[in-house]
Amino acid sequence: MPTAVIYHDTPIASTVEDLTDDPTVVAAESDADVRDHLADADIFVTNPNHWRDDFLDSLSAGTWIQSTSIGYDAFPVDEFADRDVTFTNAETLHDTVVSEHAFALMFALSRRLGPVLDNQRRRDWDRSVGAEMWLWEGTQMTVFGLGNIGESIARRARAFGFEVFGVKRTPSIYSGVLTGDRVVATEQFHELLPETDLLVLTVPLTDETHHAIDASVFSALPDSAVVVNVARGPVVDQDALLAALETGELRGAGLDVFEDEPLPRDSPLWERDDTVVTPHVGGRSEDFAIRFARLFLDNYRRWRDGESLANRIV
Amino acid sequence: MPTAVIYHDTPIASTVEDLTDDPTVVAAESDADVRDHLADADIFVTNPNHWRDDFLDSLSAGTWIQSTSIGYDAFPVDEFADRDVTFTNAETLHDTVVSEHAFALMFALSRRLGPVLDNQRRRDWDRSVGAEMWLWEGTQMTVFGLGNIGESIARRARAFGFEVFGVKRTPSIYSGVLTGDRVVATEQFHELLPETDLLVLTVPLTDETHHAIDASVFSALPDSAVVVNVARGPVVDQDALLAALETGELRGAGLDVFEDEPLPRDSPLWERDDTVVTPHVGGRSEDFAIRFARLFLDNYRRWRDGESLANRIV
Repeated sequence: MPTAVIYHDTPIASTVEDLTDDPTVVAAESDADVRDHLADADIFVTNPNHWRDDFLDSLSAGTWIQSTSIGYDAFPVDEFADRDVTFTNAETLHDTVVSEHAFALMFALSRRLGPVLDNQRRRDWDRSVGAEMWLWEGTQMTVFGLGNIGESIARRARAFGFEVFGVKRTPSIYSGVLTGDRVVATEQFHELLPETDLLVLTVPLTDETHHAIDASVFSALPDSAVVVNVARGPVVDQDALLAALETGELRGAGLDVFEDEPLPRDSPLWERDDTVVTPHVGGRSEDFAIRFARLFLDNYRRWRDGESLANRIV
Repeated sequence: MPTAVIYHDTPIASTVEDLTDDPTVVAAESDADVRDHLADADIFVTNPNHWRDDFLDSLSAGTWIQSTSIGYDAFPVDEFADRDVTFTNAETLHDTVVSEHAFALMFALSRRLGPVLDNQRRRDWDRSVGAEMWLWEGTQMTVFGLGNIGESIARRARAFGFEVFGVKRTPSIYSGVLTGDRVVATEQFHELLPETDLLVLTVPLTDETHHAIDASVFSALPDSAVVVNVARGPVVDQDALLAALETGELRGAGLDVFEDEPLPRDSPLWERDDTVVTPHVGGRSEDFAIRFARLFLDNYRRWRDGESLANRIV
């Protein structure tokens, strides 16, 4: 019977065991547990936070790693390829959850839920905050990265009356809801910025997208613009973001991801009135474990039957 | 030159004066100001909070009252009709704003922004709250009241993958985005409840809708259901709502309106972890004054030219 080592902070291991006894599950509780069991395992289920580079030493050719996340910048996928290790992510699991989280962040900003919920805690009926709220309808949203998540956000945004534009590395392969002139190549991204009211970040983190959102972007955006990041922290130059918020060059930011995670306690991003900070939970939901377990077991059946795996990266 | 008395808590009077000197504006700062000037005015601009029933005594036939709100249950419209006083509301101003506010409330609940923003204030990176978040896609939304706001919400909800149903007093006159079998008459409302995950309230307050959402509704909904009220407080039996939250018969409530406003400081609704309380600001936005001023001046031109008024109730 194949063995899967599962190392995660949600009850995926027990959920899989509740559904099936094939594969055999080893629930790792620590890095040491992984080091003890990985060499004998056929499959390793984990996420980028739980990955340690020395785990590589225990991986033999033919091992399959299934990540619970979409972003895989923290995994050494080139090394996986060199060692004949298969790697799959969970892209198809996350797009609608992350998309709903992005809307939660943008509405939390436009309806000023930070101060409103502070008032709720103080039992303070203060309607004056209504004068700081704004309407999204008729404004321009630019989606930086038109993969599954970006497309999912663009589709929903059109129903809200946003003018939606998108940025894609290769616009010619785009086949989503946006019409041709609404999708531009990365080189034209800056041309969209002066008209952008809401910039939503949904690109994978790569060498090209690292700090793609820097001081020059914040300068080009209107002062009334807002940024929402549900991609990866290092896509944004966080010091430049903070400076733009402090000088009023940017109106607000809804952030689920950060350059350092956990976001350090001394980060000024925590206490600002114009930020909404969520702790990298854009992909989370109460039924995450069961939804992931089903995706994993579906892929496991393919793996056992020698079929090609879903969401395969290498 | 016609005279308009404007009595409101936002800078509508100065905004109108900035745009035109016709009509002459009297900016009332108090009930006493209104009593001093209303008898000589042609037009009275106000909202339900600022209305006092003794103002009726100062109104002469032909006076036009323009409310800044949609709901007009607080105005004695039958008395207006008897006295040949014209009354218009501002329905067309509010539907998209209120619709965006409804989505802010529903995403604040599903992404647990109450506890998340508490954690932000404490600089506490706690991802465990992710296990309490949920996905709306694929769930059933029932919109109680398919007027402009309800329709606006239904249209947006479809893009999020909700199964959307609607309740309308006269389904035969419905002509919106929902197909025929998705729109039911008030008498069939209770049949929808066992399958409803999210109940959104958008009906006007009338004798028929007063306490339409009562203990029997909370019993019929699944325990996992959530209620969002952007209509009027008394549509809900608030004691029954609280009881349903306390016993776990209801998962959460996003509330912009209440039976008594301001919501009394001793209301248990303030401090619950499963409520999001906003202070009746669903229709507010930073450009409210200018948007209302334009609507009012457009209606004023019609009034001067003897044309029929937009949003006329009596």
